[in-house]
Amino acid sequence: MTNKKFVYFFGNGHAEGHGKMKDVLGGKGAGLAEMTNAGLPVPPGFTISTDACIAYYENNRSLSEEIQAQIDAALAHLEETLGQELGDEENPLLVSVRSGAKFSMPGMMDTVLNLGLNDRTVHGLEKKTNNPRFAYDCYRRFIQMFADVVMDVPKHEFERIIDRMKEERGIELDTDFTAADYQEMIEKFRTHVQNKSGRNFPQDARTQLNMAINAVFESWNNERAIKYRQMNDIPHDLGTGVNVQTMVFGNMGQNSGSGVGFTRNPATGAREFYGEFLSNAQGEDVVAGTRTPLKLEEMKKVMPAAYEQLCEISDRLERHYNDMQDYEFTIQEGKLYMLQTRNGKRTGAAAVKIACDMLDEGLVNEYQAVLMVEPQQLDQLLHPVFDSKNDFTVMATGLPASPGAAVGQIAFTSQDAVRMAENGKKVILVRIETNPDDIHGMEVSKGILTARGGMTSHAAVVARGMGTPCVAGSSDIRVDEERKVVELRDGRTLMEGDFISLDGTKGEVYLGELNTIDPDLTSGDFGRFMLITDKIRRLGVRTNADIPRDAQVARDFGAEGIGLCRTEHMFFAPDRLSFMQKMILAETTVEREKALEKLLPMQREDFRGIFRVMDGYPVTVRLLDPPLHEFLPGREELMVELALLKERKADPEKIREKEDLLERVEELHELNPMLGHRGCRLGITYPEITRMQARAILEAACEARKEGVDVQPEIMVPLIGTVAELRSQRDIVMDVAGDVFKEQGLEVPFLVGTMIEIPRAVLTAGEIAEVAEFFSYGTNDLTQTTFGYSRDDAGRFIRYYLEHGILPKDPFQVIDRDGVGQLVKMGVERGRATRPNLKIGICGEHGGEPNSVEFCHQIGLNYVSCSPFRVPIARLAAAQAVAKEKIEAGTGQK
Amino acid sequence: MTNKKFVYFFGNGHAEGHGKMKDVLGGKGAGLAEMTNAGLPVPPGFTISTDACIAYYENNRSLSEEIQAQIDAALAHLEETLGQELGDEENPLLVSVRSGAKFSMPGMMDTVLNLGLNDRTVHGLEKKTNNPRFAYDCYRRFIQMFADVVMDVPKHEFERIIDRMKEERGIELDTDFTAADYQEMIEKFRTHVQNKSGRNFPQDARTQLNMAINAVFESWNNERAIKYRQMNDIPHDLGTGVNVQTMVFGNMGQNSGSGVGFTRNPATGAREFYGEFLSNAQGEDVVAGTRTPLKLEEMKKVMPAAYEQLCEISDRLERHYNDMQDYEFTIQEGKLYMLQTRNGKRTGAAAVKIACDMLDEGLVNEYQAVLMVEPQQLDQLLHPVFDSKNDFTVMATGLPASPGAAVGQIAFTSQDAVRMAENGKKVILVRIETNPDDIHGMEVSKGILTARGGMTSHAAVVARGMGTPCVAGSSDIRVDEERKVVELRDGRTLMEGDFISLDGTKGEVYLGELNTIDPDLTSGDFGRFMLITDKIRRLGVRTNADIPRDAQVARDFGAEGIGLCRTEHMFFAPDRLSFMQKMILAETTVEREKALEKLLPMQREDFRGIFRVMDGYPVTVRLLDPPLHEFLPGREELMVELALLKERKADPEKIREKEDLLERVEELHELNPMLGHRGCRLGITYPEITRMQARAILEAACEARKEGVDVQPEIMVPLIGTVAELRSQRDIVMDVAGDVFKEQGLEVPFLVGTMIEIPRAVLTAGEIAEVAEFFSYGTNDLTQTTFGYSRDDAGRFIRYYLEHGILPKDPFQVIDRDGVGQLVKMGVERGRATRPNLKIGICGEHGGEPNSVEFCHQIGLNYVSCSPFRVPIARLAAAQAVAKEKIEAGTGQK
Repeated sequence: MTNKKFVYFFGNGHAEGHGKMKDVLGGKGAGLAEMTNAGLPVPPGFTISTDACIAYYENNRSLSEEIQAQIDAALAHLEETLGQELGDEENPLLVSVRSGAKFSMPGMMDTVLNLGLNDRTVHGLEKKTNNPRFAYDCYRRFIQMFADVVMDVPKHEFERIIDRMKEERGIELDTDFTAADYQEMIEKFRTHVQNKSGRNFPQDARTQLNMAINAVFESWNNERAIKYRQMNDIPHDLGTGVNVQTMVFGNMGQNSGSGVGFTRNPATGAREFYGEFLSNAQGEDVVAGTRTPLKLEEMKKVMPAAYEQLCEISDRLERHYNDMQDYEFTIQEGKLYMLQTRNGKRTGAAAVKIACDMLDEGLVNEYQAVLMVEPQQLDQLLHPVFDSKNDFTVMATGLPASPGAAVGQIAFTSQDAVRMAENGKKVILVRIETNPDDIHGMEVSKGILTARGGMTSHAAVVARGMGTPCVAGSSDIRVDEERKVVELRDGRTLMEGDFISLDGTKGEVYLGELNTIDPDLTSGDFGRFMLITDKIRRLGVRTNADIPRDAQVARDFGAEGIGLCRTEHMFFAPDRLSFMQKMILAETTVEREKALEKLLPMQREDFRGIFRVMDGYPVTVRLLDPPLHEFLPGREELMVELALLKERKADPEKIREKEDLLERVEELHELNPMLGHRGCRLGITYPEITRMQARAILEAACEARKEGVDVQPEIMVPLIGTVAELRSQRDIVMDVAGDVFKEQGLEVPFLVGTMIEIPRAVLTAGEIAEVAEFFSYGTNDLTQTTFGYSRDDAGRFIRYYLEHGILPKDPFQVIDRDGVGQLVKMGVERGRATRPNLKIGICGEHGGEPNSVEFCHQIGLNYVSCSPFRVPIARLAAAQAVAKEKIEAGTGQK
Repeated sequence: MTNKKFVYFFGNGHAEGHGKMKDVLGGKGAGLAEMTNAGLPVPPGFTISTDACIAYYENNRSLSEEIQAQIDAALAHLEETLGQELGDEENPLLVSVRSGAKFSMPGMMDTVLNLGLNDRTVHGLEKKTNNPRFAYDCYRRFIQMFADVVMDVPKHEFERIIDRMKEERGIELDTDFTAADYQEMIEKFRTHVQNKSGRNFPQDARTQLNMAINAVFESWNNERAIKYRQMNDIPHDLGTGVNVQTMVFGNMGQNSGSGVGFTRNPATGAREFYGEFLSNAQGEDVVAGTRTPLKLEEMKKVMPAAYEQLCEISDRLERHYNDMQDYEFTIQEGKLYMLQTRNGKRTGAAAVKIACDMLDEGLVNEYQAVLMVEPQQLDQLLHPVFDSKNDFTVMATGLPASPGAAVGQIAFTSQDAVRMAENGKKVILVRIETNPDDIHGMEVSKGILTARGGMTSHAAVVARGMGTPCVAGSSDIRVDEERKVVELRDGRTLMEGDFISLDGTKGEVYLGELNTIDPDLTSGDFGRFMLITDKIRRLGVRTNADIPRDAQVARDFGAEGIGLCRTEHMFFAPDRLSFMQKMILAETTVEREKALEKLLPMQREDFRGIFRVMDGYPVTVRLLDPPLHEFLPGREELMVELALLKERKADPEKIREKEDLLERVEELHELNPMLGHRGCRLGITYPEITRMQARAILEAACEARKEGVDVQPEIMVPLIGTVAELRSQRDIVMDVAGDVFKEQGLEVPFLVGTMIEIPRAVLTAGEIAEVAEFFSYGTNDLTQTTFGYSRDDAGRFIRYYLEHGILPKDPFQVIDRDGVGQLVKMGVERGRATRPNLKIGICGEHGGEPNSVEFCHQIGLNYVSCSPFRVPIARLAAAQAVAKEKIEAGTGQK
């Protein structure tokens, strides 16, 4: 005996539970209790709690006697309330049995309607309603549903029986069946159940109820429910509630019906009565789509009184919940019953509008308003979309790799794309797959389409970073880059210059030029909403941007500086790559310095452009990070080429040349490049690289300052593991700074700080803070080393881990608070113990992920930095973190 | 003004310093002070402290006025004591100026003798000694030495002048020069100094002294001193002392002389008067080797009084220092002077014997005795050595990759080696380089010789692990594995079956069969000494061993169990590899299980063998760890092969086959395998592998138990990062255990524990300890992830880091206490907070490194585990850790 309450009654204007008890009652149960207490017309019933579900599993998947007894008591109470009895032959009580978890999992778990019918009670129903056809229809529906849900006899097998009967009778619609037909059908169903399950269809109503309750509990762990929870980050140990509720019938004639409604328009957010209604139908029929439902307003004509009442209830519901509601109702012979209410799902645009409107209407305060929009939803508002008036012809589909709509003319190479863009053309870059050499072509393109590669392919990652729409890995196209032709599945071909349109949100590609609508970022509800988030949040939001274009986009999205400017991308342009390669292949410091001298003015130009865009804001530039072999040809390719050259007895001079190159590539080859010669390890072993980069940054800063730009450079050393590393790099930078400021005749204030991305840097953060003027967490690398997972390789087993519950979330997407988070926190504490005002940010991918942003807020970081298109998301997430604190502390409650 | 004492006087039976002040006075200065205080005949002088050296560098490499003043005062005191004055024309004081750091750095820094001589004082010396030839010889020696050390005029240039003068005069020996010759030589030397340095040779004696002191301080940072400190782990910031001491002359005639002595024989440890002596010579001459010194006993005949006195002093020194002393002395006209004493360097055998003897003699207690042997020195005693009576003909040299002496007949392939060994032959495996396929050939061989590869090549690493002597990377041989011929530099060739001998300690290979002497591990001093260490130490010592042979070796060396039995090596045998590959290439679980079934009995046999050897001791078996592609052919090789097959238009069937194999290899290919699909990630995604291994271990345990063996299996899950991973693997093991024990009809107690080698495992050690019954630190991997260094790749920049002082030590060799050590400690604390009696060990390479063993002791681990030949080293290091604690606490002092 637990002496715990497992069953909660509701009915007659009073419920034992209430709306805040979603944990215990599930969402549906809490809604029913709340509506009952609010005096709304709710058919009475009771909710079996989620604790009972958990107890069910702990008790070898069966209900304990204690719970059974509580159910019996609640049932007796219900029977008494209604003057009906379950299984009574004269006046039978019929109930629905529905699942209802804390978080809505629509359609994932099971429901049984009309429970209580059997060969005897059906006659009671027949007499009571004086409607035999209705009674037998209910019974056959019940058998069908119960057998499917509880007894594992698939629904479609019953449909086949029905179809056969229609054929025999030559009829087409269910409505053409007579009461007698249904009686025959019932016989056939029962025989089928017996044949298929080896059991009789249960006639005892109490047995039916128990079986149904167990089946709902079982459905918590069916495959699709598990999958749904994984996809939606819902814990697996919550359990579901079960709602046993008196049946009401929307299918009792023309003055009956069922419908769903929203208190506001879920697509636009407009304050209007919105929903659908079907007369003479049960709720299921509205959703099933076999008959076309009416708009809710039309109910006004057919059932004016019920309509009036519904309007009034809708209004009360919203004021009661302070949020837009999505509800279900049934009208039985003119009388309105409410069956469910919950916060309604809505589009990003609707979410923003509703939040702003409710704020104006005084329904919520600002803290509550910012919590009414899912941060991720904002993404829908940041990209151009196709005008819905377009005439769409899908020519190919692929992965929705980077959202937004793009229109342009096909280019097949990066060079062509650049050339066409310079001639003022809008370009869509179409490639088999992209590689780092394509970076400039990608930069000038409006959209990117690839035939190969997944959601994390080069094209996808870079495009998302740039905010350029991208459809990746479309197997519907064959790209011949040499002949510059795209071949479609139907044999049609497209050439350079042909117009196509692509929707990176949907992963679709269309022929021709479609119209797009640009997003409005500053005015209107969105602009206003974002200003509210800025007012509330404490955390700064910067962006990761390597080129002025991206920096500008991020500024438009509200970024307050650059938290990560990677310098390596600057070296991949064809005119630069050759110098980079010369630098790498140099055998002496002098040779290397010569190559670096060529790169210096180019880097300086890059930085100057970025400083201009970020006038008045800090710009954190990270020194060269990737291993040098990334800039050289691939080792395997060289080995194959060389083998073939030898086989073909090619010019020995040519062979020698390849051999020399391969030798150097082999020297630089690493078995685990992620843990190899990269980051500050490069700058330490080749100090001339750091020297060149420091000079480029500081010369650019001086020049920009002379133009009147307010520059705030922050030089960031990557991959520090010991304070000695940082000191060595800082010494070089300070040395160069002295020279540059003397040459330029002015001084620009700047900081030198470090990435914290190696566990040892965290452990020795106290020492490192003696030298570092700021910390920036590289949580990508820190996650890699803390877990020992290579991001490039771990995908396969991480997927397995997620599916098998070994990892709750992908730690590369959502910061692992228990492990990596401990380190982040430790680094903050130790760093600030040394340098109390130490500025600390984060520039890994987590910087734009709402859950991780909340964590960053909680542990007291100064800012997060994320890709431009995540900036609004981070701003909202940062505001939500404050709002939650305020509301929990009771200071932010309306 | 610092008001700090920088200069310490010694003389006339009293010194301002004493023997414990090595930090301040350096070793030599402390020795001189101690001997002075002990009443030994020490020429008076003063020591300038190491603090002055540090101040010198801080003061822009010059002596502060404060230090200068203290030197002046000490010099005045010295002059007063002796009644002589520096630079006095009648009775000049002559001094030596010698370096002397805390730790002996023999020959690395500079010395100047006879300082104080100039054109005038030389006449004073001449008159005083009535020996013009001696006086001019001293002066020319002084110029030569001073110019070399202080003025950068190389010594050999003076030698050239001397040689030319000998030629002119037709003489051969220095002793044939007359006083006049030396006077001419002095002129020539001075002219040369002026021409070469652009400066006059300084005539002012006080200037000479200052210049010499500065030069000694400078020599602290000369290249060879820095290198020496790096090699010997001596910190760079200690500084050196400078000893200014009155000259005494061993070269004043036949009743003068110089010598070095040891209080015991440094080669054997025997208690005997041991050393060398040269009459009419300065100390430098004894070392230089131009004349052959006499054995010390022979001094008895030529200078009986001095000999007697030396014997008595030798005895006093040893009793004073409680350690074997290495001293220098000079006899000037019959009078004995002591110039230096220090703890003498000795061989491993001598160290052990001296420790045991001194214990017996009551000179030291057991704690002190165990501190008298360097753990690393023990290695010399564990391997067979060649009988010194052998006639050695070196046929080739290479790297001393794995110590010990081996003799046998050449085999060129692993298969040949196995076949020859089965026929009872002793085999030396000779390969260009070895790879994992050679493992069985290596196992049966007495020694290994390779033509390619360094100290960390496969051959070297595996041979050291097995304790098999190995000479690696010998460029003196050309190995033709196909023709089975070794070609030597002189054109001679060796064939299969020819006898060779190799010395892996020296890196030498000899023709023919040499005699070897086996080490005596249990009786004698070594056996006794190791028993003392066992009595003292608290830390357990286990071994890393994968095969019964290694386990037996480790038992002989005193291992108390196996701390790491890797199972992957068991799969590389040719007959097993094919099943392993089938298992990996399997496309279904069923196929995979079939291949695993074949491997099961083989693994079981392996384990049974190990259990037998380890009767009564725990055996920790680690489940499969390496990524699966290690068992497949190389990706690059396949790519080249395939390209060539296509080029040659080979059989399409053959091409398809290769393509299929390459495809699977590509699927398994990882960019960073160290952070990839390995460790428990394999066992989780392929649970059938864990199931097979658990079964093999437990079946073997049951079988061994039935034979009467006391088996204590401990199953260890590698690479855990989350408790869920461990739980999943533990569940499988417990499941299998239930089955096996039922089948076998008996239960064997066993533990399930985990490696701690990922930072996240440390961070969540509290949770993990809920499931783990023991922890074993894999500090190799933990160092990799904590630093973000790939062990395979980091060699190059780690070397640079060590050379440039960015890392004090290679963290893969000596545990990084500041970073990795913090994590190890944290894991211990968190693990034991959950499970107070949690057994915790370490099985990374650090487990056999003395400094790391000390750390493991300090943080309270239960045991260390290391390769068999490191077991005695670890035992001693563990005892030393206790001894140091006891002595520091004052409880272990004799």
